Amino acid sequence: MPERKFTVKPSLTTRGLLPENQETPLEFLQADTMNNYQFFRRNHFEYPALNQASYRLLLGGLIKQPVSLSLQDLYRFPARTLKVALECAGNKRGFFEPKAFGEQWGKGAISQGYWRGVPLANILDLTGFSSHAEEIVIKGYDHGGRKDSDKTYPYARSLPLEKALHLDTIIAYEYNGQPLSYKHGYPLRLIVPGWYAMASVKWVRQISVIGTAFNGPFQANDYMYYPNKETDEGAFPVTVQNVNSTIQSPQDMEEVSGRRHRIRGIAWTGQGSITRVEISLDDGVSWNEAAFHASSSPYEWVSWQYEWKPDRAGEYSILSKATDSTGRTQERKAFWNRKGYGYNAMDHVKVRVH
Amino acid sequence: MPERKFTVKPSLTTRGLLPENQETPLEFLQADTMNNYQFFRRNHFEYPALNQASYRLLLGGLIKQPVSLSLQDLYRFPARTLKVALECAGNKRGFFEPKAFGEQWGKGAISQGYWRGVPLANILDLTGFSSHAEEIVIKGYDHGGRKDSDKTYPYARSLPLEKALHLDTIIAYEYNGQPLSYKHGYPLRLIVPGWYAMASVKWVRQISVIGTAFNGPFQANDYMYYPNKETDEGAFPVTVQNVNSTIQSPQDMEEVSGRRHRIRGIAWTGQGSITRVEISLDDGVSWNEAAFHASSSPYEWVSWQYEWKPDRAGEYSILSKATDSTGRTQERKAFWNRKGYGYNAMDHVKVRVH
Repeated sequence: MPERKFTVKPSLTTRGLLPENQETPLEFLQADTMNNYQFFRRNHFEYPALNQASYRLLLGGLIKQPVSLSLQDLYRFPARTLKVALECAGNKRGFFEPKAFGEQWGKGAISQGYWRGVPLANILDLTGFSSHAEEIVIKGYDHGGRKDSDKTYPYARSLPLEKALHLDTIIAYEYNGQPLSYKHGYPLRLIVPGWYAMASVKWVRQISVIGTAFNGPFQANDYMYYPNKETDEGAFPVTVQNVNSTIQSPQDMEEVSGRRHRIRGIAWTGQGSITRVEISLDDGVSWNEAAFHASSSPYEWVSWQYEWKPDRAGEYSILSKATDSTGRTQERKAFWNRKGYGYNAMDHVKVRVH
Repeated sequence: MPERKFTVKPSLTTRGLLPENQETPLEFLQADTMNNYQFFRRNHFEYPALNQASYRLLLGGLIKQPVSLSLQDLYRFPARTLKVALECAGNKRGFFEPKAFGEQWGKGAISQGYWRGVPLANILDLTGFSSHAEEIVIKGYDHGGRKDSDKTYPYARSLPLEKALHLDTIIAYEYNGQPLSYKHGYPLRLIVPGWYAMASVKWVRQISVIGTAFNGPFQANDYMYYPNKETDEGAFPVTVQNVNSTIQSPQDMEEVSGRRHRIRGIAWTGQGSITRVEISLDDGVSWNEAAFHASSSPYEWVSWQYEWKPDRAGEYSILSKATDSTGRTQERKAFWNRKGYGYNAMDHVKVRVH
């Protein structure tokens, strides 16, 4: 009888089931793109039930005339393919001190791959819109109750005209060369590169041009930075991804042996491109440059590495710090905010070398 | 075309892949027993490749005569079925302050179900053994290197005679009515109820009676409580499970709405039985009795619940505390030890009520 082989593979980390929130096991992946089963799942509601056959994308509001488009209509537009790292605004929330309420995400509420679709601008070119237009509202099919309200709401977000009309803001119908998966927004997902992923509305139902500031609860209550614990004073919206980096290996509190180690991880930014990744092996006293290849897309992460030859056994406090082309860099401590968004302190792992 | 249904289920939480260490998503299970895919996986080495056809259990050392038994031989012994919660000695290691090196397990390195097999005592009755016998060594097929050594070792552990000969210490060949799964020890796993699960050796290869104290590294180096960070002074072995409890719902930093909540979880002990579970809603100032049914087996956990009607919105610090029939109870802070074993502080979650 042949010997039995065992398969060992990482699983998504469950953070919640109703709605489903599952995290990519980023520490255990060396992949540059995530497949549908590795991609993190972040939902606000139960998955919407869709009737695929009758699907049409609705356009309304301050446009020249209401329009609805079938998927076949959309496939006839010129398409763009973008490599984008989508990152939940709550990525790394679990690291805030003091802790912030909400899903206690670790390092894996980020995933990347190739999104293909039609620039939102091209669709709006078709419909035309009023000169009073201020924002574009994108509403998904997902909807339900909120813990802070008795009403039900759809998931809906707005973009300022400038971001909505940027040619990299697309209505995507493919991921990694295949139709979107159900859990990740089939049939259409808005992709807003460079912004935290709350902007990339799934299961797009309707696009509306409005002449005011949209104030749905996922725009005006959630996805706001509240610097104060007790009041809403000083609140401002979550938009562009902060410059950030993550150490994938070694892991925090790992014990390692030997005299050569490859410290590796990723770095990304929502603005410009990553120009430097530095590693400290002495808790921030001194810094060393990590090696990486410049990204091919401004919206993808870079994979960096640093060859480490520890000269003694014992404990080490390892930090990673990324800097982008606009001069933004990571600080030792993240900007604390009540809802726990945009965590981007230097990443930190402690290891013991034997 | 019909509407599409989505399946949502929790995954094991990956803590390591080489060797495979994956945690049961206990917070998301209300089950009383775990199936093979929900059961936590804790390995010291790669999975061993076994030749099933030629498998024989070897017995040696200070026995009257060396013996080997086929699985068919074992099936002819009278069998016992025990409901047992197996808990990794490192369960909850991630909660130690200061942190302890090693796999950063959360609350899910514990799982339970029905193990069926032959009392080790009955097998040793068959072979007989010398009056000089002191310990029984159980060696698994799994083997490999260690981070603190250049040699390779098998996974092997010993039991004192008294525990080895207890009729509840069994060589198990079935889990939940089916042959053991490969990942959980097929064809045979020692089950040592009441002790942390490092004692429950998987893929049992050989049982040896010895006249000395076994000093393999998984007995004399690992699975020892080291109370001091820098020295081995005061070390003592990890054996019986501490009294313990876990809050499964709500989760830490969860936001909840409404005026009725069921706080629920489990409690267990390796000694006696659980006699009381208390819940505090004010960070330990006052305590309330949780309801539970007495366990049917001394080795299973009890599932408890407490119906909570918060009288105000805001933040709550919730604690759970279990007490067993031998008078052991949980303290606010766990006994810190360098390798991070036996964490059993009161469980603690913070929630916000809307």
